[in-house]
Amino acid sequence: MEQVQLLKVDKEDAYDGVIVEMDKPMDPEAFVAALRASISQWRQKGKKGVWIKLRIGLSNLVHPAVEEGFHYHHAEQDYLLLVKWIPTDIPISIPANASHRVGIGAFVVNSERKVLVVLEKNGVFRGTGVWKLPTGVVEEGEDICAAAIREVEEETGIDTEFVEILAFRQSHKSFFTKSDLFFACMLRPKSFNIKKQEAEIEAAKWMPIEDYSEQTFVKENQQFNLIAKICIERLNEQTTGFIPKAVIKGGGRKNFVYCPKSQL
Amino acid sequence: MEQVQLLKVDKEDAYDGVIVEMDKPMDPEAFVAALRASISQWRQKGKKGVWIKLRIGLSNLVHPAVEEGFHYHHAEQDYLLLVKWIPTDIPISIPANASHRVGIGAFVVNSERKVLVVLEKNGVFRGTGVWKLPTGVVEEGEDICAAAIREVEEETGIDTEFVEILAFRQSHKSFFTKSDLFFACMLRPKSFNIKKQEAEIEAAKWMPIEDYSEQTFVKENQQFNLIAKICIERLNEQTTGFIPKAVIKGGGRKNFVYCPKSQL
Repeated sequence: MEQVQLLKVDKEDAYDGVIVEMDKPMDPEAFVAALRASISQWRQKGKKGVWIKLRIGLSNLVHPAVEEGFHYHHAEQDYLLLVKWIPTDIPISIPANASHRVGIGAFVVNSERKVLVVLEKNGVFRGTGVWKLPTGVVEEGEDICAAAIREVEEETGIDTEFVEILAFRQSHKSFFTKSDLFFACMLRPKSFNIKKQEAEIEAAKWMPIEDYSEQTFVKENQQFNLIAKICIERLNEQTTGFIPKAVIKGGGRKNFVYCPKSQL
Repeated sequence: MEQVQLLKVDKEDAYDGVIVEMDKPMDPEAFVAALRASISQWRQKGKKGVWIKLRIGLSNLVHPAVEEGFHYHHAEQDYLLLVKWIPTDIPISIPANASHRVGIGAFVVNSERKVLVVLEKNGVFRGTGVWKLPTGVVEEGEDICAAAIREVEEETGIDTEFVEILAFRQSHKSFFTKSDLFFACMLRPKSFNIKKQEAEIEAAKWMPIEDYSEQTFVKENQQFNLIAKICIERLNEQTTGFIPKAVIKGGGRKNFVYCPKSQL
């Protein structure tokens, strides 16, 4: 009998799943033979889900894996994760893919009730003359409160400390099938001299808060109008948002819970 | 000169991008020839990003696309989206992939200050005896407030109406490189007879709120403990959360902004 090499399991998960991380090139035919033999063995061991992570350099193995009954789970720039459910008598139960992009908008006000605003060079606001709060996307592994500080610094050069989440908005189909969560954040400025970013920002300035909220676009767009009202109510201390509170997880990892103020 | 067919552009975006949605099989060599000719033309027209969406049935075109300089952007069960940045003199600017999974936990209390709790059949709490709030994952395109109502109904058969977001927690690397946002939601029960789900739930019951929060696991896990405290403070009307307010977007689509109560 011919010997077939089995695929190396890199990790098993808490749900009877096996994870194979392929990073070395493999001949597609040898890959298929190894995959079939491995699945047969995993089935005998009662394994349920089989995960194969293929680095982009191994894209020649994507088609063979799909032909063996795998489907896609998710992809990042440099890898594709495929999954196959082995049992025929147990309903498929596969963890959900990431469904949301997360963004922030930063409400930064100085002691003269002037708010930090920008004119964007690109995107849907290009050329509209609408002064906006600095906004940006939360990066992989980044805390929302850290992202808000980073974006303000990148776009305007202003140092800030995080105060509160004032509100958030969920929207759908913002990019292909993906949804979007946008967090309106209040920050306190620690510096005041603007140094605007060249690549994305046409102009940046401190603007009286009422001039910001009275812009036609802000008044007529329900979402912008509502968030501007919440910002002003917060400034007038008529409302409060959620503050970040660190909690320690297993492994010493710190997460933030954003919660009402009475908790501190 | 030989005629090469160009790829059909399905959509152009606001950022000088072209989107090609491949759904019919194509010979890999013909695909590469068409791709090269198309990119040459798009480059002349000043296009920047090229997006190719390949249905899983066309997985034989993944490797050729990667060899032509495309990388992965994201994937869902039945498709892979690849992208290539054409200009060599303009910094790469490609929209972020979805980075977060979104989940909910439901705090449902009846008039006797009993909270709706479940014992889970699967996952990390299997066999631990820990009574938990019903939890679940927000589905593609689903509003957080709708997901909370759906999960409570699915797991326990209880009808509810949504009241407030009490707090939320962000965590990282919850699944491969993906982050997680978990929203603690308060709901008001509209029915009281529990019909538990067979597949995922071992048992479900109404439990005195203090018995829930006094469980060793809940007391010792910082996140569970904090969220339990916020739930009890909200029950005692010592704090308030964010309520959903619908805003209408262009195209008549409705989004929810979750915001402090003074806004209504």
